[in-house]
Amino acid sequence: MTEPLFIALEGIDGAGKSTQVALLSAWLDAVGVPHVSTREPGGTPVAEAIRKVVLGEPELTMPHESELLLILAARAAFVRDVVRPALEAGRTVVADRFSLSTLAYQGYGRGLPLPRVREIVDFATGGLAPDVSLVLDLPVDEGSARQARGGSEEDRIEAEGLAFRASVRKGYLALAASEPDVDVVDARGTPEEVHARLRGRLVARFPARLGVTAPTQEDGAG
Amino acid sequence: MTEPLFIALEGIDGAGKSTQVALLSAWLDAVGVPHVSTREPGGTPVAEAIRKVVLGEPELTMPHESELLLILAARAAFVRDVVRPALEAGRTVVADRFSLSTLAYQGYGRGLPLPRVREIVDFATGGLAPDVSLVLDLPVDEGSARQARGGSEEDRIEAEGLAFRASVRKGYLALAASEPDVDVVDARGTPEEVHARLRGRLVARFPARLGVTAPTQEDGAG
Repeated sequence: MTEPLFIALEGIDGAGKSTQVALLSAWLDAVGVPHVSTREPGGTPVAEAIRKVVLGEPELTMPHESELLLILAARAAFVRDVVRPALEAGRTVVADRFSLSTLAYQGYGRGLPLPRVREIVDFATGGLAPDVSLVLDLPVDEGSARQARGGSEEDRIEAEGLAFRASVRKGYLALAASEPDVDVVDARGTPEEVHARLRGRLVARFPARLGVTAPTQEDGAG
Repeated sequence: MTEPLFIALEGIDGAGKSTQVALLSAWLDAVGVPHVSTREPGGTPVAEAIRKVVLGEPELTMPHESELLLILAARAAFVRDVVRPALEAGRTVVADRFSLSTLAYQGYGRGLPLPRVREIVDFATGGLAPDVSLVLDLPVDEGSARQARGGSEEDRIEAEGLAFRASVRKGYLALAASEPDVDVVDARGTPEEVHARLRGRLVARFPARLGVTAPTQEDGAG
């Protein structure tokens, strides 16, 4: 059995994470990699209950500290009940958001001190980190336009507006620049184009574990 | 205006905290100390929503890390929306549980590492600590018996059983022995007897701020 991977898709709302999780999942099926995919916060009964509180009605104000702690309460359940059992069973995990979101949204976006955020993230995950976090990068106005076209309702965090999203995007890029296990992927173009880029990054990083041949030159380079 | 006090009542379930909060509140009214009293977790819309998740159905399992983070998410909202505004308005606050509960229940009871618990407590409260935490101390079997007589339904945490409560009680006593702002009060006897002991401790600690004369010798000594 090949060692399973833990892959996180990241990025601002509207960047296409859910679509890319679905395309990635179909591809992993095609290449014969057993896996589970899931969304964050959520994925367990406790986490879904918390998801309702944290994404609740946009008018529900809460301190940034509460938002962080709620998200990480769900994270801890997600790690214990979903991620660890899957990895232990040899299944690759594709997560829609993980720790990088917390650093980008609650650290850079909300302005909570990064070292404290990292400490509490580490407490919640028991130190479990993805093998790679792939940031779907998109100018913030394109993300908003995509969401509007998709007709999806905004949740409490998404309702924050462009300046907030710009801070979050800046956070993702800063984190990607300083952390080795983070790749930025251009999220412009069709879903299939973006998927090809994601796939290229994954195959370049983990050729043996994904059981496929090396990437083309264009797709490679982290 | 006298400087307001922040008083926390603490102790295992069944120790009589709610009754004592009510008696304390009536006494503060009688001596003319403006105050608010409230329960934890809860006290704000966000905190009440979290309260439902964390105390939820006894069969809802969650990691201890999630329990801690949920309680502290509620705490952060409680501090921002209830405790700080009250203190800033010159009102004394009587809280049914605060940080000491977290150390006793999630630290000693659940076995989470105390230094990490303290760090995250500090993050959630912004460093705000009660002027005094009064631990209503009762042998654990008496606490259970009182609850049974009261006919109150157990919540998820209360359902943990005697061994858990014994660890929590031990935690409270250990914390009281090592921290200057914690007093242990014998919670056996009638509500009025316990109330007289609590009142004695408060007057001994804060004679000027409570606007009453010094305590009797019997009631004194922290």
